[in-house]
Amino acid sequence: MPSVIAVDAMGADKAPKPEIEGALQAARQLGVKVLLVGREEVIRAELDRHPHSGLPIEIVHAREQITMYDKAAQAVRAKRDSSIHVGLRLVREGRAAGFVTAGNTGAAMAAAKMILGVLPGVHRPALAAVFPNAVGTASIMLDVGANVDCTPENLEQFAVMGEIYFRSMFGARRPRVGLLSIGEEETKGNELTRASFQLLKQLSLNFVGNVEGRDLYGGQVDVIVCDGFVGNVALKISEGVVNLVRFVLKESLRATITRQVGYLLSRSAFADFKKRLDYSESGGAPLLGLKGVCIVSHGSSNANAIKNAIRVASEVAKGDINRHIEAGLKAIPKRAVAAVAARE
Amino acid sequence: MPSVIAVDAMGADKAPKPEIEGALQAARQLGVKVLLVGREEVIRAELDRHPHSGLPIEIVHAREQITMYDKAAQAVRAKRDSSIHVGLRLVREGRAAGFVTAGNTGAAMAAAKMILGVLPGVHRPALAAVFPNAVGTASIMLDVGANVDCTPENLEQFAVMGEIYFRSMFGARRPRVGLLSIGEEETKGNELTRASFQLLKQLSLNFVGNVEGRDLYGGQVDVIVCDGFVGNVALKISEGVVNLVRFVLKESLRATITRQVGYLLSRSAFADFKKRLDYSESGGAPLLGLKGVCIVSHGSSNANAIKNAIRVASEVAKGDINRHIEAGLKAIPKRAVAAVAARE
Repeated sequence: MPSVIAVDAMGADKAPKPEIEGALQAARQLGVKVLLVGREEVIRAELDRHPHSGLPIEIVHAREQITMYDKAAQAVRAKRDSSIHVGLRLVREGRAAGFVTAGNTGAAMAAAKMILGVLPGVHRPALAAVFPNAVGTASIMLDVGANVDCTPENLEQFAVMGEIYFRSMFGARRPRVGLLSIGEEETKGNELTRASFQLLKQLSLNFVGNVEGRDLYGGQVDVIVCDGFVGNVALKISEGVVNLVRFVLKESLRATITRQVGYLLSRSAFADFKKRLDYSESGGAPLLGLKGVCIVSHGSSNANAIKNAIRVASEVAKGDINRHIEAGLKAIPKRAVAAVAARE
Repeated sequence: MPSVIAVDAMGADKAPKPEIEGALQAARQLGVKVLLVGREEVIRAELDRHPHSGLPIEIVHAREQITMYDKAAQAVRAKRDSSIHVGLRLVREGRAAGFVTAGNTGAAMAAAKMILGVLPGVHRPALAAVFPNAVGTASIMLDVGANVDCTPENLEQFAVMGEIYFRSMFGARRPRVGLLSIGEEETKGNELTRASFQLLKQLSLNFVGNVEGRDLYGGQVDVIVCDGFVGNVALKISEGVVNLVRFVLKESLRATITRQVGYLLSRSAFADFKKRLDYSESGGAPLLGLKGVCIVSHGSSNANAIKNAIRVASEVAKGDINRHIEAGLKAIPKRAVAAVAARE
């Protein structure tokens, strides 16, 4: 039986086009059944522009929509029939194995916590971003925005959840887990990272100590743990730097005829480059620690990004990652918690 | 009379070569007198490999040296005759108008606080990084590592000091000051940024609100305020992303003959690009809030970076920036401080 994934059809900046094209690709290539959630007439109109007869795609109507301009907490309370709510209810009711949305991240996180609930033992769910590195593999960083103010115990849980996710999704036996800090020694960092270091080194995972920002993209670490404020800043700065580099190179390559010729000859290299840095290849950020599967994609997602997010949702559901997370959190040594209590 | 700048000749990764070549360039091009501080025989040997007769360069002997491997706090107490100590004492004694070091940043900050002391009213000195942006101007970010755990009042002072520095050094009449956060609304961010927002909006400077990581390099903001942990992570991530981009492009451009030809034709564009992102052009990070001028350069500084740091030290001294900072901090409304006290 194919897995069933619910997709918010009203989330992306260019919704519903990328969602519907992504769903079509997923249904064709991945053997996944997709429930497109949103305003039926809008989805139907776009869907009918593509050949889709026989494909396992259904529409589930949701009369409301949360936009990027809505305040998350308020919208989650006020718009209980939004595509985000309806999609998450499909997961809660067992009608879908996972939910994908490229909509308002804050609303998705708040609604997911409310509708799906958190796994036993989880203090805070965390959003894990997947990104490429110099050695051609992927790394993940968590949290990247679900929790802006964190305790050492939160970071400890993020480490455990992230390690399990990475192990399941990327097949690494002993993923290297690092703590994002400033300076390698355990005494370096701020109050939060210094206290977290003491907890992480007691865990039975492959903790490699502090990692610095410049190591993020070097491929020396698989799972990078940080609070949601720092993680979110880190992601957005990376976007900013990549944009700057593209801009400067483009401008510079336009400056003379010789360089323009050079550019034409080397442009396939630039296409490669864009693809390698393309977040849409990674398929969105899982929200870990929930009773259910919820993948948050970038608002600028294209069809490929949505297809990959559907693939990730389906793999997370099949890999039974939530059961592993529940077990992993139970295995956190009590000693660590006692030490923290004593410190406070 | 030329300004006199003391330069730590033992700091850079490749010391004393970049320091001495940078000093020679500064003495020739900037009309600055340079005191090279460090082990006399080492400096003399390197200096004598270059024509320097008649140039305003002197050697000031310092028998000890703090390395990158020394623990900052410990080394500052133990090695009281290090080149960093001796250089800073030259400033305190009025024999130099400023000090430049590419050595151990932690040690430089600790020694500067101890030897020069802080300006009246300053809670914490802050390290301000200068970096390029897409519109071809510079932006500064502070703090980038002097203070890892900060209060809203610290960030308020960073805003005032950074604004004055930017105004003096880059000639902007009303620099745009932003708070590094996640989300534009004043309710977005963590506890620190939300409380800091309330203080910054009461200041009489051009506060543009929260800015996100992706705006850092866009040129929409001149002075970016954050705590030293976040600022340091931000800088190092930027380095990491630039390295990744270079690596990916280089690898990609090597893949086929056509692309190699393309690369040869467009390589001057790459040279342009490197130059624009080259931190050595900016000349190092000033440590603001001290009774004296201290510029910290990257350990990987080349001669050009050292020359530019000497230029910056001389300009900061001439611009009388410390007097402006003292006055600026006095002008922070007492109302803001009272509001914070009431909140706590």
